[in-house]
Amino acid sequence: MNALSSQPYKGTRDYYPADKRVQNYIFSVWHKVSRSFGYEEYGAPILEPLEVYAAKSGQELVNEQTYTFTDRGDRTVAIRPEMTPTISRMVAARRQELAYPARLYSIANFMRYERPQRGREREFWQLNVDMFGADTIAAEAEIITIADGIMKEFGAKPQDYVIRINNRKLINFVMTQYLQLNADKVQPMVKLFDRKDKISHQEFVDQASEIFGDQAADGIARIEALLGAKTIEDLPQEVLASDALGEIKQLFDLLAQAGVNNMTFDVTLMRGLDYYTGTVFEVYDTHPDNNRSLFGGGRYDGLVGMFGVEPISAVGMAPGGTMLENFLDVHGLLLQSRSTTDVYVAIVGDTMQAANQVASDLRKNGINAEMDLAGGKVDKQIKTAIKKAIPYVLFVGEEEVKTGVYTIKNITKAIEYKRDFAGLIELIKEQL
Amino acid sequence: MNALSSQPYKGTRDYYPADKRVQNYIFSVWHKVSRSFGYEEYGAPILEPLEVYAAKSGQELVNEQTYTFTDRGDRTVAIRPEMTPTISRMVAARRQELAYPARLYSIANFMRYERPQRGREREFWQLNVDMFGADTIAAEAEIITIADGIMKEFGAKPQDYVIRINNRKLINFVMTQYLQLNADKVQPMVKLFDRKDKISHQEFVDQASEIFGDQAADGIARIEALLGAKTIEDLPQEVLASDALGEIKQLFDLLAQAGVNNMTFDVTLMRGLDYYTGTVFEVYDTHPDNNRSLFGGGRYDGLVGMFGVEPISAVGMAPGGTMLENFLDVHGLLLQSRSTTDVYVAIVGDTMQAANQVASDLRKNGINAEMDLAGGKVDKQIKTAIKKAIPYVLFVGEEEVKTGVYTIKNITKAIEYKRDFAGLIELIKEQL
Repeated sequence: MNALSSQPYKGTRDYYPADKRVQNYIFSVWHKVSRSFGYEEYGAPILEPLEVYAAKSGQELVNEQTYTFTDRGDRTVAIRPEMTPTISRMVAARRQELAYPARLYSIANFMRYERPQRGREREFWQLNVDMFGADTIAAEAEIITIADGIMKEFGAKPQDYVIRINNRKLINFVMTQYLQLNADKVQPMVKLFDRKDKISHQEFVDQASEIFGDQAADGIARIEALLGAKTIEDLPQEVLASDALGEIKQLFDLLAQAGVNNMTFDVTLMRGLDYYTGTVFEVYDTHPDNNRSLFGGGRYDGLVGMFGVEPISAVGMAPGGTMLENFLDVHGLLLQSRSTTDVYVAIVGDTMQAANQVASDLRKNGINAEMDLAGGKVDKQIKTAIKKAIPYVLFVGEEEVKTGVYTIKNITKAIEYKRDFAGLIELIKEQL
Repeated sequence: MNALSSQPYKGTRDYYPADKRVQNYIFSVWHKVSRSFGYEEYGAPILEPLEVYAAKSGQELVNEQTYTFTDRGDRTVAIRPEMTPTISRMVAARRQELAYPARLYSIANFMRYERPQRGREREFWQLNVDMFGADTIAAEAEIITIADGIMKEFGAKPQDYVIRINNRKLINFVMTQYLQLNADKVQPMVKLFDRKDKISHQEFVDQASEIFGDQAADGIARIEALLGAKTIEDLPQEVLASDALGEIKQLFDLLAQAGVNNMTFDVTLMRGLDYYTGTVFEVYDTHPDNNRSLFGGGRYDGLVGMFGVEPISAVGMAPGGTMLENFLDVHGLLLQSRSTTDVYVAIVGDTMQAANQVASDLRKNGINAEMDLAGGKVDKQIKTAIKKAIPYVLFVGEEEVKTGVYTIKNITKAIEYKRDFAGLIELIKEQL
């Protein structure tokens, strides 16, 4: 038999303990901030019927990026590419029983068949934070305050990121009223706005002209006037007539009250997914080496209603793990991590049984302890502890067993201490 | 458009917050006990090439139970039905860099296409605990001690479960030497032993006779002598000649030293997976309403070598979440859980902004607080808090804002307190 490959499936990642610690740190911040705002964790299946995504997630996602297949019972299913349709389904199923506003979050894995690149993997982990049943702008304000709270909890400074905000109602107004585009031209123009930062200005103008057709000259002039606006007040007079502006202004006021300062209005922000109906936002990294959207969210009032119940309003967001890991990396916010194991019990001589007892006693005192089983050389055991990033090595030799006084080495500080067992526990708990 | 179903995919489960809290409790015990023995967490992709399972996981699992499909790049992949081949692959990929013994654990989801029934779901969650690079029986003893430690941490008493132990080398000796079966008859007989508790004694004898063919009378007599043995010493003289008995005896001694008392030798224990090479064990529930195998494990020294590197010895186990939830349920070990949210901030009158500030201040003090956004009736807000199992309701009315003295209600105890903000923090931290 030929040897099997030891590489992970293309575009996915093996998380060895050092990598997993970084991921766990990111997860711990997500849990902490989400819970602090009263969001409760839920879990959901990794498979859904494909049709759940077909309706509202957008053509590209469904037709090109899903992992779709037919199961042994002839059902067409997909590995979830996102959580929003699933949590909407779950809320629909318990529409009567839930208490509102329902505040829900999850941390889960997803798959999309995309070209793997920096910050984008075929399997990725996301936090999803969603509020159901609150149709005031206070809901959007809370979700964006949580986004901001997560960034601050990671140690990010206001200048490290910016929160761009727009509104689908304003986008619709701009497309149909201000740019006077017919229904069939709205979608191409929305996609073009979405790509704006990824192409040159000339490419943008050329492609926009193509969409406008006969009215290109006037249309481009209108777009230039629109894109020139850096604040809401700067917008062209005709755009200021949109009802959506009231929502945007109210959102900015509520965010300012909540202590969120680095948000900006961005009329070009579109967000790819089809289901958004109101506010949309994205958190952008301002670092020159990672100048990109980190994550986003928005209001999607139509999704729960797809599952055969009265619609329920909804606002949510979904930060991704690898994207945030890159952010922490370029901003120098990832600290050196150590093993979850506190003590490596080294066996010096024929003391396996005594060492086992010491390790067991350490565990009873809440200290994570592993020990050598091969009974190798002491030098080698110390190297093993260092390789595993375990902070302490405790030596159990015949002398120690006789006297009850142990030598323990703090690897990081390179200091040795001699203590009896009670003293050991005290020392470790004090220093960790 | 027809409404979409709001039910989860067949055989999978939606974990609403109350269900997720139970799962999180089980996960927290898994994390705590695994880490206490110095095991470090890793993560792995949900997809693997199908061939990873084809080699050693057994025909039934691969041909009937995997979720297999061809991806958009024409690769034949499977949603992982188990973790052992994956972690073996990961160890093979870093064979040189890892420190040994490598102690590794993960908590992850898996899928198998099986008939859904009590304790068995198509998507399920498992802890996997594995040690690589230790080929002494001390490794098996440690893994089984962790299994026992998990049961104890859940509050299980020794009489609530029993740990059954056998050894593949002994099974091989029994099949080929003691029962004198030809190579082609070993596998059917192993499968029959595995099913022994699920069929009647007569069915067992009939099917065994069929496998023996001509030698049925002598064969059945030998099996009866074998099955009569309740301890190692009781085994038929010819079986006592097996080398494996030394391993089994040593394992029992080490377990007794480690304080594991409720293990028993079971010569009929087979374990379904093909890759086991030595010790196998299972933790059985003794409760009459749930009398079944909860989880198991064993030694599998051949798996890492499949990935083109020198073999590394390995021992591991994999408890499942739902199985343990059923165990906790029938033994009355599942406690009533409350929300992760500590305080529901109720708005009395036109105090939204002040309430927001109070909620924000609670969070800064490490207290998880949510608040109403709709500004509904106070009675309704209290009901919402009760429905969500939030232990405290804090009322923010105009009087409270003016005086700085708040009323807080402990829902469980049905007691109201009046405190200033500092007093509130003190009260909540003291009681939670």
